[in-house]
Formats: sequence, C-alpha cells, structure tokens
Amino acid sequence: MASSGLQTKKGDSHSDHLVQPTNPNVAAMQEDVLYHFSLSTSTHDFPAMFGDVKFVCVGGSPTRMEAFAKYMAKELGLDHPGAEYPNICRGTDRFAMFKVGPVLSVSHGIGIPSTSVMLHELIKLLYHAHCSDVTVIRIGTSGGIGSCRESKERTRGSEKAGAHLLGLKPGSVVITRQAVDASFKPVFEQVVLGKRVVQRTHLDEELAQELMQCSLELLDFPTVLGNTMCTSDFYEGQGRLDGALCSYTEKDKQKYLQAAHSAGVCNIEMESSVLAAICGACSIPVAVVCVTLLNRLEGDQVSSPHEVLVEYQQRPQRLVSHFIKKRLAAARNPPNL
Amino acid sequence: MASSGLQTKKGDSHSDHLVQPTNPNVAAMQEDVLYHFSLSTSTHDFPAMFGDVKFVCVGGSPTRMEAFAKYMAKELGLDHPGAEYPNICRGTDRFAMFKVGPVLSVSHGIGIPSTSVMLHELIKLLYHAHCSDVTVIRIGTSGGIGSCRESKERTRGSEKAGAHLLGLKPGSVVITRQAVDASFKPVFEQVVLGKRVVQRTHLDEELAQELMQCSLELLDFPTVLGNTMCTSDFYEGQGRLDGALCSYTEKDKQKYLQAAHSAGVCNIEMESSVLAAICGACSIPVAVVCVTLLNRLEGDQVSSPHEVLVEYQQRPQRLVSHFIKKRLAAARNPPNL
Repeated sequence: MASSGLQTKKGDSHSDHLVQPTNPNVAAMQEDVLYHFSLSTSTHDFPAMFGDVKFVCVGGSPTRMEAFAKYMAKELGLDHPGAEYPNICRGTDRFAMFKVGPVLSVSHGIGIPSTSVMLHELIKLLYHAHCSDVTVIRIGTSGGIGSCRESKERTRGSEKAGAHLLGLKPGSVVITRQAVDASFKPVFEQVVLGKRVVQRTHLDEELAQELMQCSLELLDFPTVLGNTMCTSDFYEGQGRLDGALCSYTEKDKQKYLQAAHSAGVCNIEMESSVLAAICGACSIPVAVVCVTLLNRLEGDQVSSPHEVLVEYQQRPQRLVSHFIKKRLAAARNPPNL
Repeated sequence: MASSGLQTKKGDSHSDHLVQPTNPNVAAMQEDVLYHFSLSTSTHDFPAMFGDVKFVCVGGSPTRMEAFAKYMAKELGLDHPGAEYPNICRGTDRFAMFKVGPVLSVSHGIGIPSTSVMLHELIKLLYHAHCSDVTVIRIGTSGGIGSCRESKERTRGSEKAGAHLLGLKPGSVVITRQAVDASFKPVFEQVVLGKRVVQRTHLDEELAQELMQCSLELLDFPTVLGNTMCTSDFYEGQGRLDGALCSYTEKDKQKYLQAAHSAGVCNIEMESSVLAAICGACSIPVAVVCVTLLNRLEGDQVSSPHEVLVEYQQRPQRLVSHFIKKRLAAARNPPNL
C-alpha cells in the first residue's frame, strides 16, 4: 500500500516518529491478539492493512464513524460508485473500524474504560503496522456549559442577560485546550495494581491551534477553543437533574456548572482525559473536537429534533476533513525551506 | 399485554414492588427523553411496550444480548417460524434492546460509565412502564483468577501444584457474592458535583444462592460463588502485561492477583460494582453471572479459539434461562402457604 507521503515539519525520516507503545513486553510477543478488535498479528498482515495510516479519527458511535469514513472517501476523491467500506472489526461488535486511504475511523463506545481498551489495542495495532507520524483526533458529542471568547463576542450588545448569554449555543464546536477532571484539574486518575496513579492530560497545543485555524477558514459554525471536562458518568457525574438517581438540587447543579465555567470549561464529555493521557504517554499528537448538543445551563435532556442532532454531529467531521485535506496538500507540496 | 403473573414470596400486591427511581424529579417531568435508548415517553407507550417485564438481562455485547433474546424465545416456547426480534433501540447504536415475553435483554457496552448511562435510562424506563417485581441479572464475560470452594474440591488430590491449581478453569461460571473494587473493598466510588461519593455495592444474596442452586441442577459446567473485582481498565487496571502501557513487572502482577485471590476474588470484569450500586440504591434485586474466558494466573491474552469462546459465553445464558423458567413455573403454581 502506498504511503501518503506525509513528512514532518523538520523533514525527519519516517522512522523518527514511529508509533511506539511504552510497554517493552509488546515487542517480545510472538503473537498479539487484539481481542476487542478481533484482529491478531498471526492472522492479519498489519503492515499491509494499516501501514499508510496517518490520521486516526475516533468517536463513540460506530454508525457515526462509518458515516465519517464514507464522507472522507468523498472528500479525498477515493469514493467511486459501488464502493464499500467494510468494518475491519466485523469479527466482534465491541468496536467498529473503517479505513479510507490514510484515515482510520474507529468507534470507542461510551466512557473512559471503553475508550481505554480501544486505545491500548489501537496503539499496538499502529506499532505492529510500523505506522509513523500518526495524529489522533476525537470527533465527538458533548454538553456545552461555558462561553469562551468567540461566544462572548457574538453575544456582546445583546439585550438578553444572565445565564443564557454565558452558554454556548447548541451546535457550537469546542476544540479542547485542556482535558480536565470533575474538579477542573488537567489530570487523569486511574487505578493500577490497586493504587491510584495520577497522570497529566496532554493534548497537542499546536494541533489545537491548527484545527482552530481550519474552523476560521471554514466559517461554517461557531467554534471555540476551551477546556473540556471529562466525567465518568452522564447523569450524576455531570450534575444532571433527570437521572434515576439525583442527590442534589437545581441550585447545587447551577453552582457546580458555574464553577466549571469559571475554570474555563466549555463542554463536558466522557472520554477526552484518557485520550490525552494514553496518547500523550506514547507521544502521539492528539486533539479533541466535540460539538455541543445542548446548553447545560438551560437543561439536561437532549431533546432537539433528530435531524438537528444529525447535522450537529457532522460539524466536527467537516472541520477535521478540512484539516486532513490541508495536511495532505501540504505534504504533497512542502514549503521550500 | 398480559402480566406474567409473578408474585412475591409474601403474596404482596404488584404495587408493593414497583420500580422507583430515587430521584423525585422524574415523576414531575412532562416528557422524558431516554436519549441513549432513542425512546421518549411522548413518542412511545412505555406501559404497553414494557409493562410485563419481570427479568432484565444485561451484558456488554449487543450481538450476545440479541442471541440471548432468541434463545429465551425458544426456551419459553415463544419462538415460531419467521419470528423476528427487532432491536427496540434501533434509532441509536449506543445500546441494543430486545424483548421476549417477560424478559428484556439489553446491552451495556464496556465499563462502568457506559453501564451507568444504560442503568439510569433502564430504571426510568421500568418506572414509566409501571413495572413491578423486576430482577436484573448481568450475564457477562470476565477473567478468572481465584479458586473458590468448588474449584478447590475439584483439584484436591491432583498431583499438580502451585498457581495453576489456584486458577479457575476457563469456562467456569462465577456468580458474584460481592462486587469489590481494585482494593478488594465492596464499594463503588463515583464523583458527584466534583466530590467523591462512596457507596456500598449491594447484590442480592438470596438471588445469588438461587442461581447457584440452578447451576447445581443443571450440572452443565463448573460454577462458583465468589467475589468479583470490578476495574475501570482492562489492561493496566487488571494488571495485564500486554497493553500498550505497562509500568510494572510480572512479579508485581502475580503478587497483585494473589492478593486479590486471598481476598476471595474469583474473577475480574468492568461493570459489576455500578450495577450493584445503582440497582441496590433503587432496591431492585440484582445478580452478576459471568463466565471466565481465561485464567489470569496463566496469562493475559484472550486467545482461545472463537468457537470455544462462543460456547463459554452461552453458559451464563443457559444458567439464567433455567432460573427464569423455574421462577415462571413457581409463579404459575405457587406453593400453598
């Protein structure tokens, strides 16, 4: 399979940025069964299947990640009548995976543990395939809670006042500056051999800025750069009042969301911190681009009409498609140094 | 839809054990959108669709939960040529749901956060449908690590010695006595409004014993009653040496698994504690029945042949089917009191 010919800014050779797990045991394994992908190094030729992957886009829903693969095929001119985009992980229903040229599109389910399983196996897959210079981007959904600069400018001079003005309009896209925990700290805590281990969440700042620039070029939908709060629960963990369990009041909820807003949190989702921690640990540049489906300062239920939600979910895809096409064009025509 | 006629042991009326969320806000909601099920009280008639549900069986994989629904249809004599079992949540790909008579079969994905989302919406669904006397059972997969009484008896007198003898044979089924965390404590910690909240995990002891009795009647596969460790990660969180990241040695891993074994842990999975905590909080009897796919004292990779793993995964289904049929028979012919 042909390489997509990407080079790094400094003109380094491919081998300088090979994907590498931090676990030395992986190199010594005779066979590696990626159980949740239903793939194995002894039954699949990873370098032939995945060697040219440069962009891995991940998101919760398998259907959305399939739609993204089809959309990318069109955008990259790789689509043709009757083209099929088979699910590479069709031997299992844990995750779905699609490939279009240098783009791999993978689902991760809901929440940190599910995403963690996917990421461990993804990084090993990229390693076994000898992939280099890979960028990982999550294209997801979230609840919006805070304004950032862009939103403030848009509402300046409005006659409305109060919480409404502080909220990001549903359909806004947030590019994550920092992935923070439920206490608004840029850390990811996990338990290893029964002991709590805290890691920094590390997202690529240049990559986030590059994506923000793409959004300014598109001028398609409101986009902000802000902090993203990553929680382990959708209901109580995000201060919702509409779950089966709820041990606090509307006032407590508003106080919490306002505190998050004051800490620079623009949106809430359930996967960004583990993505930042695991990819960061393996020195893989990673970004998180999520659309907000609702304004959490105004409510908890996701009740917009289906077609509106579908269009919202396409926004991160359009942004990331523009980014990928721009990167590929730059690789084909590198600037004279 | 006819009620399946289940009664409780004390002959209480149905209304005594109606499913009830602990959140008083739910009763006041004009519409309740169960977003991750793609169901809403304003577009679906919950009492007509779900009013007769008495058993909710949950598991990670949507395909497995569909297979369980088809299997239950046969077992309950509700199957007929050309019968279809449509996915009730077909408007979304987050979860899958199937119904066969009084049995609801629902997928929950991988991990606590995914399962938590499903449980909040499930309990609200059962409440809106006015369901009563509902039992929830997880039929899942796990890694085995420790022996319990049954396994010890089986290996007594064997000439083999050491760690091998302590391990549960792959394919063994564990009925959970206590769901414990990665420090072997029977608690579930979550973060609510940024603060850590610790809850007891509460599984129904009588229900576990009833399931154990069913296994003894079946005499189909080895079954033990033991503690189940619930972790938030499949790789480092369970002491695996084969993930993309690994910060400890084989010796550290063995020490940890032996400590778990000493604390009565028979198997490790990723959902039992949240199931015990949330169902427990709403006073819904709940049990966890998982097959072990491998012996973690001997390895980390799930590498048994596909057909072997498929058969293993049917074991909890056979056990729970026997239990459901027995319960339904007892309800049709209640003992004279």
